Amino acid sequence: MTSKQKIGVGLIGSGFMGKTHALGFATASRVFDLPYDVDLAVLADVTAPAAARAAQALGFRRSTGDWRDLLDDPEIQIIDITTPNTLHREMALAAIAAGKHVYCEKPLAPTSADAWEMTKAAEAAGLMTQVGFNYLKNPMLGLAKRLIADGEIGEIRTFRGIHAEDFMADARVPWAWRLDPSGGGGALADIGSHILATARYLVGPVIELMADIATPIAARPVSQGATETRAVEVDDVARLFLRFENGATGSLEANWIATGRKMQHDFEVYGSKGAIVFTQERFNELGVYFTDDKTGLRGFRTIFAGPEHEPYGAFCVASGHQIGFNDLKAIEVRDFLVAVAGGEKLGPDFAEGAEIQSLVELAYRSAREKRWVSTKST
Amino acid sequence: MTSKQKIGVGLIGSGFMGKTHALGFATASRVFDLPYDVDLAVLADVTAPAAARAAQALGFRRSTGDWRDLLDDPEIQIIDITTPNTLHREMALAAIAAGKHVYCEKPLAPTSADAWEMTKAAEAAGLMTQVGFNYLKNPMLGLAKRLIADGEIGEIRTFRGIHAEDFMADARVPWAWRLDPSGGGGALADIGSHILATARYLVGPVIELMADIATPIAARPVSQGATETRAVEVDDVARLFLRFENGATGSLEANWIATGRKMQHDFEVYGSKGAIVFTQERFNELGVYFTDDKTGLRGFRTIFAGPEHEPYGAFCVASGHQIGFNDLKAIEVRDFLVAVAGGEKLGPDFAEGAEIQSLVELAYRSAREKRWVSTKST
Amino acid sequence: MTSKQKIGVGLIGSGFMGKTHALGFATASRVFDLPYDVDLAVLADVTAPAAARAAQALGFRRSTGDWRDLLDDPEIQIIDITTPNTLHREMALAAIAAGKHVYCEKPLAPTSADAWEMTKAAEAAGLMTQVGFNYLKNPMLGLAKRLIADGEIGEIRTFRGIHAEDFMADARVPWAWRLDPSGGGGALADIGSHILATARYLVGPVIELMADIATPIAARPVSQGATETRAVEVDDVARLFLRFENGATGSLEANWIATGRKMQHDFEVYGSKGAIVFTQERFNELGVYFTDDKTGLRGFRTIFAGPEHEPYGAFCVASGHQIGFNDLKAIEVRDFLVAVAGGEKLGPDFAEGAEIQSLVELAYRSAREKRWVSTKST
Amino acid sequence: MTSKQKIGVGLIGSGFMGKTHALGFATASRVFDLPYDVDLAVLADVTAPAAARAAQALGFRRSTGDWRDLLDDPEIQIIDITTPNTLHREMALAAIAAGKHVYCEKPLAPTSADAWEMTKAAEAAGLMTQVGFNYLKNPMLGLAKRLIADGEIGEIRTFRGIHAEDFMADARVPWAWRLDPSGGGGALADIGSHILATARYLVGPVIELMADIATPIAARPVSQGATETRAVEVDDVARLFLRFENGATGSLEANWIATGRKMQHDFEVYGSKGAIVFTQERFNELGVYFTDDKTGLRGFRTIFAGPEHEPYGAFCVASGHQIGFNDLKAIEVRDFLVAVAGGEKLGPDFAEGAEIQSLVELAYRSAREKRWVSTKST
Repeated sequence: MTSKQKIGVGLIGSGFMGKTHALGFATASRVFDLPYDVDLAVLADVTAPAAARAAQALGFRRSTGDWRDLLDDPEIQIIDITTPNTLHREMALAAIAAGKHVYCEKPLAPTSADAWEMTKAAEAAGLMTQVGFNYLKNPMLGLAKRLIADGEIGEIRTFRGIHAEDFMADARVPWAWRLDPSGGGGALADIGSHILATARYLVGPVIELMADIATPIAARPVSQGATETRAVEVDDVARLFLRFENGATGSLEANWIATGRKMQHDFEVYGSKGAIVFTQERFNELGVYFTDDKTGLRGFRTIFAGPEHEPYGAFCVASGHQIGFNDLKAIEVRDFLVAVAGGEKLGPDFAEGAEIQSLVELAYRSAREKRWVSTKST
Repeated sequence: MTSKQKIGVGLIGSGFMGKTHALGFATASRVFDLPYDVDLAVLADVTAPAAARAAQALGFRRSTGDWRDLLDDPEIQIIDITTPNTLHREMALAAIAAGKHVYCEKPLAPTSADAWEMTKAAEAAGLMTQVGFNYLKNPMLGLAKRLIADGEIGEIRTFRGIHAEDFMADARVPWAWRLDPSGGGGALADIGSHILATARYLVGPVIELMADIATPIAARPVSQGATETRAVEVDDVARLFLRFENGATGSLEANWIATGRKMQHDFEVYGSKGAIVFTQERFNELGVYFTDDKTGLRGFRTIFAGPEHEPYGAFCVASGHQIGFNDLKAIEVRDFLVAVAGGEKLGPDFAEGAEIQSLVELAYRSAREKRWVSTKST
Repeated sequence: MTSKQKIGVGLIGSGFMGKTHALGFATASRVFDLPYDVDLAVLADVTAPAAARAAQALGFRRSTGDWRDLLDDPEIQIIDITTPNTLHREMALAAIAAGKHVYCEKPLAPTSADAWEMTKAAEAAGLMTQVGFNYLKNPMLGLAKRLIADGEIGEIRTFRGIHAEDFMADARVPWAWRLDPSGGGGALADIGSHILATARYLVGPVIELMADIATPIAARPVSQGATETRAVEVDDVARLFLRFENGATGSLEANWIATGRKMQHDFEVYGSKGAIVFTQERFNELGVYFTDDKTGLRGFRTIFAGPEHEPYGAFCVASGHQIGFNDLKAIEVRDFLVAVAGGEKLGPDFAEGAEIQSLVELAYRSAREKRWVSTKST
Repeated sequence: MTSKQKIGVGLIGSGFMGKTHALGFATASRVFDLPYDVDLAVLADVTAPAAARAAQALGFRRSTGDWRDLLDDPEIQIIDITTPNTLHREMALAAIAAGKHVYCEKPLAPTSADAWEMTKAAEAAGLMTQVGFNYLKNPMLGLAKRLIADGEIGEIRTFRGIHAEDFMADARVPWAWRLDPSGGGGALADIGSHILATARYLVGPVIELMADIATPIAARPVSQGATETRAVEVDDVARLFLRFENGATGSLEANWIATGRKMQHDFEVYGSKGAIVFTQERFNELGVYFTDDKTGLRGFRTIFAGPEHEPYGAFCVASGHQIGFNDLKAIEVRDFLVAVAGGEKLGPDFAEGAEIQSLVELAYRSAREKRWVSTKST
C-alpha cells in the first residue's frame, strides 16, 4: 500500500462554488491517483454555525467562523478561496504570507492591479496558485488545444468566441452585487472572462483589442418585486475584436441577457487545414473538420469524449457516458495538486488569471475610449 | 447541527461499477441532505491486498478479501454488490439472510428464476433493495415520466427504444465472459436490459412481445490477437416488438456492434397530444413536442436540464452546466437511502429488476421459437 | 446548337403530385443536358376545364378531360400517371398497349398482382418504366449507396429504417380514401413503401420478414367535424423485422401518427468498418463514421451535399445551398429520360415497384398470421 | 380560364446566377398564381452563340450577343441583370432609360455612389426594381420577421450575424476578379452583404458601426498552380459592431476562409421575451425560444418550414419536404412581379440594395480609420 504524504485543505466559503470545490476534492481523491492524500481539514464560513453545518455536509473535519484561523493552522497547506471576488485579494495575500498554496475562484480580483499584486506575492514566496477557470479542464478542450498545437488544423487564422447566458435577461431580476461596478464590471468581467480564458488557452496571448459594451436593461428593481429602480452601470453585453500574438484575428461576445441561452460558451477556430467548433452546452463533444479528408466525404465530425481524451477515462470507462460540470473541478484539483507536488504546471495560475483580468480592464477602457488598445500600452 | 443516524455500507467489488458506486456515495453525501450519515465502512474484493488498495483509493475505512466478512459486521446495514452478475444471487441471498439491505448492479441475475428468488427473499425479510439501472435516475427521464403521467402528451400510442453501442463491433474483440451464455445472454441481456427498463419506466408493463436476434460476428478470437476462434452463442443484436398493458405498442433494439454509436440509449414516445424524444449521448437534454403550441410555431423543444428538474439543482445552480454519468449513481444512492429510511420507494427494486430479467428471457424464447409470447404465459 | 429529338409528355393528374411532376420536367430541362427536348404536350384531368386550367398553370400546350385521349396522340411518347393508385393499373396497361413509356407515382398499385401485371406488360412491350420513389434520387442517398457498394463501411451488418409523419395523428382527421383497405393498406403501404424502397436500394433484397401492425385510432369521423365515426381497418403503424439476401438483418417502422414528425424518413446502416445515418428532414446531409479514422478523432461526419455528389452541381454551384423536394423529381425525370434514350437504367422501374409492393403485402400477411414469411414462399 | 397580361423578360447573363434566375421564372410560373403570364423572351450573353445555347437550355424564345438589343425590344418589360457587379450600373441605367423594370443581382454595385445613382434613376422613372438578396425570401425568415414585428419575442436587444463560407480558404485558390478592389471589396462586400441585408430585414436600419478587417492570405497565385503570386488587397474576413436605430446592438462577421463552413449564414436575435436562431445550412428550420413557455419546459423549438409559412405551401403540401435554394429565387420573382403589378412592395428594391452598399463602404472606412462611423455622417 502506497503511503502518500498528507496535504491539508482549508476551504473558505460554502456557497455554490464552495460546494463545487469540496466535491472536486472528494471526487479527485477517488478517481485519480493523486500525489497526495487529501485531508479536508477545515472549512471557514462567515459564521461558526454556518461553517459547522457546511463542514459536516461537505466532509470537512473541522470548521471556523473566521477564515484567518486557517492561516496559522499547521495542518493546512492549501487555502482554497471561493468567496466573492472583492475578498480574494485580502485572503490570498494573507494565505501567501502564511506560506500556503492558494486555489482561488475566478475572476481573480476586481482589478488587474490586485490580481498582479497577488501574482507577484505568490511568485516571490515560491507558492503554487490556481485560478478556477474550470472549463479549460474539459478533456475536449485539451483535445482542441492539442490539435492546434500539433498543427493538425494548420495555421490558425480566425477565432470566434461567445459566452452567453440568460440569467440576467429578465428585467425584473433585481439589482445585486453582480451589478456593483466595484466588482470589476458586468457580463464581460463575470462570464466573458471564461471565454477570454478559452481564447488564450487555444490561440495564445491577445496583443490588441477593440471593445463595445451595452446595457439594454438600464435600471433594475432595487430588490425583488420593488417598483423603485436603480441604474445599472455595468455591461449586459460586451463585444470584442481581438488580435492575437500569433497573427490570428478574432471576436468575442459576453452576454448575460441572451434569452434562452444557458451555457453558450462556444468557440470556433478556423485554420488553414481544418476547423474546431465547440459549445459548452454539450461539452462532452467536439466538432472537428479536416481538409485532408477525402473529397466528397468532408464534414465536421462530432467526437464524443472518451478514454482516449485524458483524463476522461478516470471517470468513465467508455465514450458516451459523459462527465459533468463538477467533474471539471475534480480535474482542476488534480492539476493543482500535481503542480504543488512539483509536477507539470498546467495552470491557469495567478499570472494567467491576472492576464485575463488585464484584458477585461483593457476592454472596458477600449469601450469607454472607443478605440483600439494594445496590451503593450497598459 | 442535525445529528443523523449513521448507516454503514459494505461494498463488494471495486471495478468500474465498484468505483462508480463509491463515487455515488461520496457525492450523494455532499450534494443531498440524506436521511443518514453515510459511513463507507468496508470494501470487499477478491484478495485482501486488492481490497485494501481500493478501500484507500475510494475512501472506505476498512477492507477485506472475503465478502462474507460483511455479513456479520454490525457496522454494516447496506451491502452493495458490484460483481459480475453470475455472483449476484449468492451474495444477495446471504446479505438478505444476514438482515442487510441490498443494492445490486444490473442485470440482477442471469436468470429470472434467480432474480425472483432474490426478490422474494428480500420481501419476506422486509428489507429494501435497489437495482442499478441508473439511467432512470436522470432528471430528464423524471421529466419525461411526469409529462406522460400528467397526460401532457396525451394518450401514449407508440414507443421506439434503442440501446446501441459499438464496443463489440470489431470482430477482433476476443471471446470473453460477456459472451458466455451462462451470463444470461448477449446484447439484449447486457445493454438491452437498460432500454427495457426505460420502456417500463415510461410506458408501463409489457404484456406481449416478439423478438428476433442475430449474431453477425459468429466467432471471435479466443484471446486478444489469437488466430484460434470460438463460436459466439449469444446475440450481437436483438429486436423486439412490444405490446404494453396500457394499449401502446412499440419496438426496441439492443445492439453492441453498432459501429460509431457510443451510448445510443434513445427513445421516442408518441402520444395523442405530443411527443418526447431522448438520447443518452446528450442526457442533459429532452426533446418535447406539444400539439397545442400555436400553429406555425410547433416544433420539438430542446430542454436543457436545470434546477427545475429535481434533483439537478443539488449538483449545479443553473441550467446548461450538466451533470455526469457518475452523478446519476449519486441520485440512485439518494433514492435508495430514502427508501431504506422509510420514505418514497422510487426503485427500481429487485421486483422490477426481476421483471426486466423475465422480459429478457421471454424475448430469447420468442426469438428461439419465432413466435409472439405473453408475459402471462410464463 | 445541338438539335435534340423531341419527346412528348402526357401527364394525367394535376394534384400535388401532378404539379410536382410538371415542375420536375420544367426544372430538368433547364438544369440538365437531357437526351431529349422535352415537350410538355398534353395534360389530362377529370374534367376539361380543370385540365385546361392546370395546363396553363403548369406549362402544357394542350389539355383534355379524358386521359384516354393521350393513348392515340402521336405527339406523346411518355405517359405520366399521378392519379390515386387504384387507377394506376388501368392507365398504365392502356399506355403500354398504346406503346408509350410509363412514368407512374408510387405506390405502383394496391396489389402486387396488379403491379406485376403492369411490370410484365411493359417488359413484353419493351417499354421503359419509372416509379416515383423520388427520395432515392437524393444525391446523398447516392453517396450512401456508393459507400456501401465500394465497401467503405465494410460488411453491412444491421439496418434500421423509419418513415414517420404525423398527418394522421389527430384523431379528428376524418376517414378518407387513404384509409380504404382497397388502396392496399395504411401507413406501411402509403409511406412505409418509401423506407422499404430505401432499404432495398441500400442493402439489397429482403428475403424474409416478420411484421406487426397496430391501429391506435380505431375509428375516425366520417367527415370533417362529424360525430358519426367509421372504423379504420388499415394500419396507423407497422413494424418489420427484416432479413436481407446479403446476410444483414434489420428493422423498419412506418408510422403516420408520430406526433411532431414531419418527414422522419431515417435510416442507420451499420457495417464492420463504418456507419451511415440519415434523416429526410435534413436530406442535404449525410452522417458517416469510419473506424479507420485516427483514435480519438472518430465521430460521425456531417457531410453537406455539394457538387461532388452528382447531380447536386446541376442545381447549385456550391455545397450548403441545398436542393429541395421538387428538385428530387427533376433528377427522377432525368434518370427516366436517360433510360428511355437507351442509357443507364437507374430505376426504380416497375419491377422494383412491384417488388416493394410484394413486400408490403407480405408484411401484412405476416402481421395477420403472426409469423415470419419468406419472399420465396409467395 | 383567366387571361393574364403577358410580361416579357430579357435576361442578361447565363452563368450560375443567370441559370438560377431562369429557373426562378420557370418555377414561379408553375407554383404561383402570378399577376402576369411570364414570357421568357430574350436571353443576352457575351456572344451570340453562347446566348443561343443558353436560350435553348433555359427556355428563352430568342437570344442575342448584345445586351443593348433588349433596350428597344417592345416585347420586354423587365430586364434581369445577372452579370458581374461592375457592369450593373451601366446596364441598369440603360434599362431604366429605356423604361424597363429592373431585376438585378446583388451586390447592386461596387460603390454606393453607383447604387444610389441607379436607385434615383429608377425612382425618377417610376420603375420597379428588385435586388437579388434571395435569402430574405425564405419563408422561415418571413416567420422570424413576423415574430419580431409582432413583439412575440419582446423588445429586441442583441443581434449576432455571420456569413461564413470556405471557398477561399485554400491559399492555392488563385487571384481572380473577386479579389479585385474595384469590385467594391472582399468577403464583406461579396458575402457579408447578405448578412447585412438579413440584419436590416429583421432588426431594422443600422445607424452606427465599427469594423475590423483582416487578410490572412496576403498573396495568392496569379493563376491556378502558378508559383508567382499577387498581393490580395481585399478582406478575407470582416467583423462589425452594430448599433441599430431601434436601440439594439449587435455584431456581424463575414468570412470566406472559414474552413469547413459551407453556408454559415447564421443569426441569433435576442429579445426580452424570447429569441430566434437560424442557420442557412438548414434553412427550412427556425429555432425559437419563448420565455412564457412553462417553467421546466422552456427550450428552443426547431420549427420546420410548412404550409403555414407562406409561400412554402406553393412548393410542397406538407412540412418536412423542404424547398431548395433555387426555390428562393422563385419567391423573389413572384414578389417582384407583384410589385410590378402594383401590389405590395416586399423588396429589397434598389434603395435597400444601395443602403446595404453604403453600409459596406462605411464598414471599410471604419476599418481603415479604426473608428466608429455613423450612417448620418456619410
